[in-house]
Amino acid sequence: MKHIISCEQFDRSYLDHLFSIADDMMEHPEQYENSLSGKVIATMFFEPSTRTRLSFEAAILRLGAKNISTENAMEASSATKGESLEDTIRVISGYTDGIVIRHFDKRAAQKAAQVSDVPIFNAGSGSGSHPTQSLLDLYTMHKCGKKFDHITVAVVGDLLFGRTVHSLIKLLAVYDHVIIYGLSSPNFALPKEYIDYLRIHGATYISCNGFEELPENIDVIYNTRTQLERFTESDLAPREFVVNKKVLNRFSEQTILLHPLPRNAEIATDVDDDPRALYFKQAHNGMWVRMALLYDTILNG
Amino acid sequence: MKHIISCEQFDRSYLDHLFSIADDMMEHPEQYENSLSGKVIATMFFEPSTRTRLSFEAAILRLGAKNISTENAMEASSATKGESLEDTIRVISGYTDGIVIRHFDKRAAQKAAQVSDVPIFNAGSGSGSHPTQSLLDLYTMHKCGKKFDHITVAVVGDLLFGRTVHSLIKLLAVYDHVIIYGLSSPNFALPKEYIDYLRIHGATYISCNGFEELPENIDVIYNTRTQLERFTESDLAPREFVVNKKVLNRFSEQTILLHPLPRNAEIATDVDDDPRALYFKQAHNGMWVRMALLYDTILNG
Amino acid sequence: MKHIISCEQFDRSYLDHLFSIADDMMEHPEQYENSLSGKVIATMFFEPSTRTRLSFEAAILRLGAKNISTENAMEASSATKGESLEDTIRVISGYTDGIVIRHFDKRAAQKAAQVSDVPIFNAGSGSGSHPTQSLLDLYTMHKCGKKFDHITVAVVGDLLFGRTVHSLIKLLAVYDHVIIYGLSSPNFALPKEYIDYLRIHGATYISCNGFEELPENIDVIYNTRTQLERFTESDLAPREFVVNKKVLNRFSEQTILLHPLPRNAEIATDVDDDPRALYFKQAHNGMWVRMALLYDTILNG
Repeated sequence: MKHIISCEQFDRSYLDHLFSIADDMMEHPEQYENSLSGKVIATMFFEPSTRTRLSFEAAILRLGAKNISTENAMEASSATKGESLEDTIRVISGYTDGIVIRHFDKRAAQKAAQVSDVPIFNAGSGSGSHPTQSLLDLYTMHKCGKKFDHITVAVVGDLLFGRTVHSLIKLLAVYDHVIIYGLSSPNFALPKEYIDYLRIHGATYISCNGFEELPENIDVIYNTRTQLERFTESDLAPREFVVNKKVLNRFSEQTILLHPLPRNAEIATDVDDDPRALYFKQAHNGMWVRMALLYDTILNG
Repeated sequence: MKHIISCEQFDRSYLDHLFSIADDMMEHPEQYENSLSGKVIATMFFEPSTRTRLSFEAAILRLGAKNISTENAMEASSATKGESLEDTIRVISGYTDGIVIRHFDKRAAQKAAQVSDVPIFNAGSGSGSHPTQSLLDLYTMHKCGKKFDHITVAVVGDLLFGRTVHSLIKLLAVYDHVIIYGLSSPNFALPKEYIDYLRIHGATYISCNGFEELPENIDVIYNTRTQLERFTESDLAPREFVVNKKVLNRFSEQTILLHPLPRNAEIATDVDDDPRALYFKQAHNGMWVRMALLYDTILNG
Repeated sequence: MKHIISCEQFDRSYLDHLFSIADDMMEHPEQYENSLSGKVIATMFFEPSTRTRLSFEAAILRLGAKNISTENAMEASSATKGESLEDTIRVISGYTDGIVIRHFDKRAAQKAAQVSDVPIFNAGSGSGSHPTQSLLDLYTMHKCGKKFDHITVAVVGDLLFGRTVHSLIKLLAVYDHVIIYGLSSPNFALPKEYIDYLRIHGATYISCNGFEELPENIDVIYNTRTQLERFTESDLAPREFVVNKKVLNRFSEQTILLHPLPRNAEIATDVDDDPRALYFKQAHNGMWVRMALLYDTILNG
């Protein structure tokens, strides 16, 4: 692939291919230390996201590439002088061998790809796609030995606006016999377009009202933060579904608990030491998935 | 040269020397990958300029040097605690082998050079000099096969405040039989000091009112952005001279169209694909010119 | 040591060990160029301090390690989304081999160490500890050939709030027969807890009202900036004790003048060229001490 723009690009064979590279990197990191040596990769963040930026930058550096970076491109860039995103990308692509872009405009990565001579990596585009987040979510399930055909996953929290949930659903839909359980307040339910998307792709969607409705041996509980910054005071914020020790103990040894982070109160710290609580491992996996993605796209894209 | 402070430093033989290094680097980049290995170069930006910063940083890294950087030195530095620029530079020069500085005070680079043990590179000083911009402008003409003696160049836009135009004029004046055409609103005409400067150095200056007054086979049209942020609402902003397909087609195949970027509306996007429209190439050349400058100054300065 | 959190950690033998590494690095820097090769170290600054950050980053890079960095972690990080510091550190420690942290909360470094799998380096925690500053202060005395047993040091300025003074006192107290002279306005005198601390450790503390009360052959004058940003207009700011040429000339050839920088008016620029004025050298030493600390902690910690 020339550019990494959205989850819709990935099919089963690509995901297999990518995850096998990531597996190999985790096992033999020293073999990849110079694999992008001589390359310069820019990280252009038009909205802040320190976690994603540092994860990409660590990935860039661990492959032996070099990094140029801006952590608040809006404030300090030519954008403030009325330059179009396309012009900015045309200029930066002349200095680099790849551009990681985070932007508040959901079409930004797509626009960038249209004018760039070098690979574009979407690190989140407004309310739109954030493909590397979904890849690391899926990769974490893979690392735990989960098979994606017949997988059962509960998505929990704000299913109406939750971008990571929407992207994860689209990725999981490429597999067979997938069952998704949705747990949310009624006014923050999964939009019909995603329910339809699942049905069309042969997956099952089951709406629930509480953790007690989930099967005890469910494979994955994917909890998410309510993005309170989206709500004005007068809005009705969604009910939180808090996973604490008591809730987690309803489920089997094989159930894993994931969260895209940052978390607020929806995962109690009393479960942090539970071996099934894998959200920090999940974040760490993000670096390896991004390494695999940079490596594969820049060398073979 | 020990420091790179302003365009007045450069004569014909230095420019020849520098451009031949840049030519060689573009042809054999792999031969320079480790030429500044073991060196640490700081980029200290006291006012934002992402494009210039990233261009310098890519140049630093592509020579095998390392980079420490601050993209908003005013906000996060000791300057907020009342430290003088001289003290800041004295400290940073102890960590590094070179300092790239961008500052709102037009004498900043000069002040820095007076106290620094390591080479200072001026990346733009307020309304003052921005020597690497002018070098990349000139280098782009060179790369297109232009000979500087007898060259004909139209400078277009805000000639009163336009820093890049002023610097370019000073650089071109070192050559023989240069003819500069100036295209601007009457109230944004080139200041008398630059017209005199050209005359004293044996160059010709011709003021024009429209593109139709320029010779069809002019070598270079150098258009510039009106820096609208300089004008209050009550000011009379200068008339824009827009180059679009129709305007560009008045000129010969040999005419090249340059712009320091960012552009607003003064170059229509319908000319972006014209082989004579070289403003993105020009920006890319900036990285190579900066590589040549860093290399030559740090190793031989 | 696994983490570098506060000055209380260091004893005589550790300081000897650390300074001998720093000495060797200054003498043979080329032998350490790749000593942390393959390591990635994060610099997480939750409050601005460009000087300290760049010093750490130069140290990281000069050891062959790689750096990922955030210069305003509060603005651009998950902290704005309500994430705990502990969660942030847990995530970043998964990308890195060490974390340098600067924070406004004085217990931040301690909190970070409790959850981090990789070494934490405290680069200043609010009004609390700033151990690398004190190490470089002491190291500068060592580099000038001072012996710490029987050393005489005047601390000057705001002794009430001055964090660097407090930390330096704690470090010096590990040696024998130390004499500290305190020079401050009465309302900014050294707090009793530090006077007691010195007495308990066998050191002598002598409060003074002017430079004329100091012995002519005192080893070190350690002047400090009055942190005017701490005072409201109605507060009584402390009297400044200005060292100028006349004051410095009261003292012997062996007396050295230090300052943690940035300085305001309390050291006149007319002494900058005096060979005893070592505050810029002191800042430069900071890089070498930090290199020694990173090297020793990450490889042997």
